Amino acid sequence: MTNWTLAARAAKMNPSVIREILKVTEKPGIISLAGGLPSPKTFPIQEFAQACASVLAHDGQSALQYAASEGYPALREAVASWLPWDVDPAQVLITTGSQQGLDLVAKVLADTGSRVLVETPTYLGALQAFTPMEPHIVSVASDDQGPLVEDFVAQAGSGADAARFMYLLPNFQNPTGRTMSEERRAALSAKAAELGIPLVEDNPYGDLWFDQPPPAPLTARNPEGCIYLGSFSKVLAPGLRLGYVVAPKAIYPKLLQAKQAADLHTPSFNQRIVAEVLKDGFLARHVPTIRALYKHQRDAMLAALEREMAGLGVQWNSPAGGMFLWVRLPEGMNAIELLPKAVERNVAFVPGAAFYADHGDPRTLRLSFVTASAAQIDTGIAALAATIRQAL
Amino acid sequence: MTNWTLAARAAKMNPSVIREILKVTEKPGIISLAGGLPSPKTFPIQEFAQACASVLAHDGQSALQYAASEGYPALREAVASWLPWDVDPAQVLITTGSQQGLDLVAKVLADTGSRVLVETPTYLGALQAFTPMEPHIVSVASDDQGPLVEDFVAQAGSGADAARFMYLLPNFQNPTGRTMSEERRAALSAKAAELGIPLVEDNPYGDLWFDQPPPAPLTARNPEGCIYLGSFSKVLAPGLRLGYVVAPKAIYPKLLQAKQAADLHTPSFNQRIVAEVLKDGFLARHVPTIRALYKHQRDAMLAALEREMAGLGVQWNSPAGGMFLWVRLPEGMNAIELLPKAVERNVAFVPGAAFYADHGDPRTLRLSFVTASAAQIDTGIAALAATIRQAL
Repeated sequence: MTNWTLAARAAKMNPSVIREILKVTEKPGIISLAGGLPSPKTFPIQEFAQACASVLAHDGQSALQYAASEGYPALREAVASWLPWDVDPAQVLITTGSQQGLDLVAKVLADTGSRVLVETPTYLGALQAFTPMEPHIVSVASDDQGPLVEDFVAQAGSGADAARFMYLLPNFQNPTGRTMSEERRAALSAKAAELGIPLVEDNPYGDLWFDQPPPAPLTARNPEGCIYLGSFSKVLAPGLRLGYVVAPKAIYPKLLQAKQAADLHTPSFNQRIVAEVLKDGFLARHVPTIRALYKHQRDAMLAALEREMAGLGVQWNSPAGGMFLWVRLPEGMNAIELLPKAVERNVAFVPGAAFYADHGDPRTLRLSFVTASAAQIDTGIAALAATIRQAL
Repeated sequence: MTNWTLAARAAKMNPSVIREILKVTEKPGIISLAGGLPSPKTFPIQEFAQACASVLAHDGQSALQYAASEGYPALREAVASWLPWDVDPAQVLITTGSQQGLDLVAKVLADTGSRVLVETPTYLGALQAFTPMEPHIVSVASDDQGPLVEDFVAQAGSGADAARFMYLLPNFQNPTGRTMSEERRAALSAKAAELGIPLVEDNPYGDLWFDQPPPAPLTARNPEGCIYLGSFSKVLAPGLRLGYVVAPKAIYPKLLQAKQAADLHTPSFNQRIVAEVLKDGFLARHVPTIRALYKHQRDAMLAALEREMAGLGVQWNSPAGGMFLWVRLPEGMNAIELLPKAVERNVAFVPGAAFYADHGDPRTLRLSFVTASAAQIDTGIAALAATIRQAL
């Protein structure tokens, strides 16, 4: 047995509870409403195949060579022009998925013990990315419109303990599916500017709206006070691991140095493929097809919940976009305890407790409506209802 | 101007001296002997094109989906079987370039102020990757056979200040091109095992030998006492950013958790492409062609140095593989000061000082013999000699 001295942070880096729990969901034939996997039906495989052939035929040597840490210029320009506020391509840093953006932000902004604010609940992957820098992660109380401004002020800290940043997922949040209202965005943006607390805005799902676009990003309201994280994982495909950070020009050089130290640069081949796929306005044609599919599947899940959960005392929300729906079980029920019973009935979900920085609500759980088909959703929700009924 | 509170580590993360210096080398028409870019002539573009088409046609949905943080099973198996000691694929972690392996190792093993040993000089990218974890980086005195075992012992520290690991590049080292001898490997490996100090062995160049393979890796001598980093950047192409870590099973889970937090997983598409390219023994056919090309170019550089530097008091070594050759200028000359004068004569190199954890030797510089052609090497070395002659 190796007996090395590990870094103190290693003791805080534990196997993801979700990851461990979900191992039980890998049995064949299970309907997984658990994972955050985009529907592979939406992956533009033909367009990728054409782009690979074209890039390798015309630009193969450059596409396979080392490249600048900032990212491929044409892709940085495509990102800047896709975003709905005035972004200079020089502010765009291409990352190896937006998960890497979280790692870089924590490296540049968080010291051991420094205060970092998150929503209640929040994205588990962000908690995992911040943890190695050992910040003091503090939850801001939140309702169905997002974090409460009063509690943001109350938790903001001051002086040497002032929050280094607040991390937010305003659109169709993972895990809850909720969206910050216009009023809440305006109020939080103003208060953050007043207090001088940077906002780190993570927006992987913002383009996946069903009926109308969400309100303008927080970053659009105060670009100098925000770092914005975006991703191609939900609008093209996650397997290329392409995300981006948009940062104020005063902060960008430090994020760039952290990026260079972390992996030199994001794969130049992947960047050129995506730039090639995007170049004739592909996203504007493609994203509506994803919206239509996911809206259809959200509707199927809402209908199944109405039908199957009647009288069980289960609550859920109706997300206006994205991939996830948030469920609250009847009083006294525990989602972690329920999961193995659900798996016996061939359906899986993610217990909500994993998404809280501190004390989680044991009654909550997250359902994805995008990976399983509408027919599978029907079967899965019926099985979940049967599991709950038996546990009552 | 944004006035955010940055992490303490951000103050230590400075623009790479090399990066800044090399900006002056980007002028058109310059012969760069500076960068560490593999010759693009060696990139197997046709094989990649076929692999992309095949993977997308037969396995597109999986190749573009999220995947396990450990890596693609077939690629992990290919790595395990390529390595010259008994490696279980379960010990292989696929990384986003071997640079990421350095980031993960530092996260898991280095605390602020903890002792980390490096060679004199060492790979600049490793210094950059370790710095964000704020270790106390200590140079071990080295000669042309590698680090001195006596100084390894002297610098190893003890008790709470015992070195967390020593980082080594035993084969055709970046920047010096030197190779650790069999005797030095055996002695250092034995001493590290005796003292219980883990060795982190970085081996991106080991397959690029010219006349005979280098001695067995340090990890092969004591797998439980070493972490091994490998890369496809020099034997296939760097633009896919594919590397790997081989770690003892007791350490692997922590590296895996750090990997998951850093970028979820290395691009699944890239992993499948490379697994497809490798599957019929491609490396065994392809790598000899790289060796032959690089040997030819090393010979061209050695011949040019003999011819052009006669009587100037310049010293250089004769690397047995890899990409780099190490030069020492005449007494009193400074490579950083020489660089702009060389650039005026249309040749660039990297001053050696950047590669030292502490006080660098200002007379040293690194030359790459792989990016420029043999004809360009002739012209470049003549220009460098003229620059030195004028500075004498």
